[in-house]
Amino acid sequence: MTNKVTVDPGKLTQFSAKILQKVGVPREDAERTAGMLVSADLRGIDSHGVSHLGPLYVKRIKEGIINPKPQIKLTSQAQSTAVVDGDRGLGFVVGHYAMTEAMLRAGQTGAGFVSVRNSTHCGAASCYSMMALPKNMIGISLTTGGRAMVVPGSVGRGGGINVISVAVPVAGGAPFVLDMATTVVAGSKFEVALRNGQTTIPEGWAVDKTGTPLTDPKKYATEGALLPLGRLPETGAFKGFGLSVMVDILCSILGGSVSISELLTQPNTTLLANHFFGALKIDSFIPADDFARAIGGMVKVYHGLPKAPGVERIYLAGEMEHEIEKQRRQGIPLDPQVIASLQELAAELGVEYDL
Amino acid sequence: MTNKVTVDPGKLTQFSAKILQKVGVPREDAERTAGMLVSADLRGIDSHGVSHLGPLYVKRIKEGIINPKPQIKLTSQAQSTAVVDGDRGLGFVVGHYAMTEAMLRAGQTGAGFVSVRNSTHCGAASCYSMMALPKNMIGISLTTGGRAMVVPGSVGRGGGINVISVAVPVAGGAPFVLDMATTVVAGSKFEVALRNGQTTIPEGWAVDKTGTPLTDPKKYATEGALLPLGRLPETGAFKGFGLSVMVDILCSILGGSVSISELLTQPNTTLLANHFFGALKIDSFIPADDFARAIGGMVKVYHGLPKAPGVERIYLAGEMEHEIEKQRRQGIPLDPQVIASLQELAAELGVEYDL
Repeated sequence: MTNKVTVDPGKLTQFSAKILQKVGVPREDAERTAGMLVSADLRGIDSHGVSHLGPLYVKRIKEGIINPKPQIKLTSQAQSTAVVDGDRGLGFVVGHYAMTEAMLRAGQTGAGFVSVRNSTHCGAASCYSMMALPKNMIGISLTTGGRAMVVPGSVGRGGGINVISVAVPVAGGAPFVLDMATTVVAGSKFEVALRNGQTTIPEGWAVDKTGTPLTDPKKYATEGALLPLGRLPETGAFKGFGLSVMVDILCSILGGSVSISELLTQPNTTLLANHFFGALKIDSFIPADDFARAIGGMVKVYHGLPKAPGVERIYLAGEMEHEIEKQRRQGIPLDPQVIASLQELAAELGVEYDL
Repeated sequence: MTNKVTVDPGKLTQFSAKILQKVGVPREDAERTAGMLVSADLRGIDSHGVSHLGPLYVKRIKEGIINPKPQIKLTSQAQSTAVVDGDRGLGFVVGHYAMTEAMLRAGQTGAGFVSVRNSTHCGAASCYSMMALPKNMIGISLTTGGRAMVVPGSVGRGGGINVISVAVPVAGGAPFVLDMATTVVAGSKFEVALRNGQTTIPEGWAVDKTGTPLTDPKKYATEGALLPLGRLPETGAFKGFGLSVMVDILCSILGGSVSISELLTQPNTTLLANHFFGALKIDSFIPADDFARAIGGMVKVYHGLPKAPGVERIYLAGEMEHEIEKQRRQGIPLDPQVIASLQELAAELGVEYDL
C-alpha cells in the first residue's frame, strides 16, 4: 500500500466546491456536488469520490461536454411520475433535482418515480437513494454507466456498467444501502487497483478483446471489458446482463433517450448518463413504528446466522460503509496520486490548497 | 434425456384446474392458477410449471398450509400504494389480486406498488410482471423464495432464494422479461436435473454444510445451500445477497411480515411467501409511440453487437422463452415423472386423465 494523506472532510468539501466554482458551476451546485463526492470518500467508496474531481468533472466541463449551468426541466409529469431533461448538467445536480421530485411525489401518493435523460456521470448511486432516508422513505437510484460490459454471446465492450442502488432506513442501526454495478466489479475499481500499485486483479473481473481473462489492471483501459455479474452463462451471466438492460430501459428508454449502448458510440458523449430515481413512503404501506421494529428484527436474524470459520460478523449491504464513515469523519485517507491531482487543480485554477 | 410426452396446453390447463377444484379451490381461482402453471411450462420454465401441481400445491392444501378459499384483503391503501394480506391463499390467486391493485393505481397516478404478506409459493414471478404488458405498463414482481441461500460469511441455508422479475413491452417483438433468482440458480433447477437423470451439476451452483462445492444433485435436498449470484465475495456474492435482502425488505418488511429468513424457521410455514408488485404506466413518462420506437432501437443495438465465435444470436431476457412458447403452443413436452404424478393425482382425486 502507498502512503495515504489524511484530510479533513469539511475542508475537502470546501476546497472541491471552490474548484468547481472556478470552472463556472454556481455556488449552490458546486457545494452540493462537492458534498456528494466527499460523502462517497467518507463511506469508503474511493472509486467515486474526489479522485474524479479533476479527471472527470473539471476536464469535461472545460471540454464543453458537461454544462456547468444547465437548464434542468420536467418534460412530463403526473401524480407519481415525471421525466427530467438534465441539459447535460453535472450528474450530481441533475440527480439531486430529480430525486427531490421523486420524493415529493412519494410524499403525496406513496410512490414517486422519475426518469432522467441528458445527464452526466453522477458519482455514487447511493448519494441519491440515501436522500430518502431522513424522510423515512425507501430510496431507489439507477444509473447508466460506461459502455464497458461484455454482453453474453458477444466480445468486447457493448453493454452498460449500469448501477442499482436501494437505501432503506434501519432505526438505530446502519441503513441498508445496496449500491452495485451490474458487472462483477465497477470499472473504477481498476483505477483504485492502479493507484494502490496492484499488478494483478482477480480472474473473473474482466476479459480482453478475445474473451480471455484479463488480470493486469494496466491493460484494462485499452483492452478490457467487464464481465456481467454472474460471470459465465452457467453461473448467471444472463442475470447480470439482464439487470443491466433493465436499468438501461428504466433510465434511457423510459426517459426519452436511447440505449446507453447506442448513446455512448456517438461523438462527444463521454460521461453522458441517464438515470432513474424512485421513492416509496414507508408509512403509506405500514405504520413507521412497525416497519422500524420489523427491519430491526430482520437485521438481527441475518447477523445471527452461523458464522463460517474465521468470520467475526456478517455484513448487510451498507454496514461496512457505515463503519468506515464513523472513522473517516475524523479524516479521510487519500492516495498520494489523488492529493497530487488536487494540488494540480488548485495551481491551475488559482485556488488556495489548504488541505 | 428421457422420453418426453407431449400434451396439449389447453387440455393441460383444464385438467389442472379440475384437480385444484377437487381440493376445494373455487373454479375461477383454479382456472387462474392452472393457466399460470401452464404458462410457465409454455415458456420453458419447467421448474415452475405443472410438475409442482401435486407435490407442492395439492399436498399443501391437504395439509392445511395453503388455504384454498382465502379472504384476501387490502390492509392499507393510498393513491399509489397498498398492502395485501393473502390469508395463506394460493400464491397465484393472491398474486393476481395484488398485481391487479398495483396496475389499477399505476393507471391513475402513473405508478402503483403493492406489498403482500401471508401468501404462498406463487410459481414463476414473470406470471405477474407480464400481466402489465397488455396494458402498456412495465411490470415488476418480487417474491421471497425458500430459505436456502448461503449468506456470505455464513454456512448452511440462511437467506431467501428471493426472486426479481421485470417485464417490459417491446412493440413487434418478444417482450423483455427478466425473471431471476438472486442465487446463481433457483433450487428447482435441481429437481429438473434429477428428472433429466443428470448425475452432476456445474460447480458454482451450491455448497454443502461445510461450504465445499456440491455437484451431486441428489445431495442438494439434504445437504445443499445455494450460492448467491456472484458466488464468491471477490466476484460479487455480496451483490446477490444484497439483492436477496432488498427483495426481503420490499416483500416481507414493507408488507408487515417478518424476514423470510425468520418466517420459514417457524412451524408449518413450508411454502409461505411474501411478495411485492409494481407497475409503471409508460405513457405517464413519455408518449407510447416514442417508447415503442426507442425500445425497438435498443433491442436492435444489443442484437447487433459483434458475436463471439460460434454464437448465432444474442438473446435479451425473455427472448428465448418467447421462442419456446411459439413452439410449445402446439404441445408441451413433459417428463415421464411429471406425467406419472399427474396420473396419480387424477386417480387419487377422481378426475378423468385425458391428456
